[in-house]
Amino acid sequence: MINKTFQALSDSTRREILNMLRDGDLTAGQISDRFNISRPSISHHLNVLKNADLVLDERKGQYIYYSLNTTVLDEVLGWFADLVEKRGNKND
Amino acid sequence: MINKTFQALSDSTRREILNMLRDGDLTAGQISDRFNISRPSISHHLNVLKNADLVLDERKGQYIYYSLNTTVLDEVLGWFADLVEKRGNKND
Repeated sequence: MINKTFQALSDSTRREILNMLRDGDLTAGQISDRFNISRPSISHHLNVLKNADLVLDERKGQYIYYSLNTTVLDEVLGWFADLVEKRGNKND
Repeated sequence: MINKTFQALSDSTRREILNMLRDGDLTAGQISDRFNISRPSISHHLNVLKNADLVLDERKGQYIYYSLNTTVLDEVLGWFADLVEKRGNKND
């Protein structure tokens, strides 16, 4: 669990990109088409998500597809689940 | 789900404070005693967590006790669970 994970998540556009990628891998162009945001801005957000290990990129032919990094997302989910669960069982 | 929630989480000391509060409510002094960090610095971190609605404070006698805001933590947990789960079921 690292600080840059949460820094990357503290932006609503980047959280929306992650929501989009739930339904399948997308190129930067496909993501840009769904937002009213310039392509360079989308590329910046994708780089931040990639540097935070929240998304992966893979070249397929001439396109680069972005996907959720479920390993890191599971780790973050586990941290929150642990926080909430142990609180519930504090009298055990 | 708001940006300041994740901004507050992007600091390891603040995440450690939340971990501490899993086991029960604590005063700022009790939290400070467990860290090698000054009381003013702990107070700053507690204020950031409080402004992000991640912790609640309640006066009991002469002390103010801090506790996890499970409502907001559950909301964040739910967001992550949704992200991971829908990805797994994308072909449904």
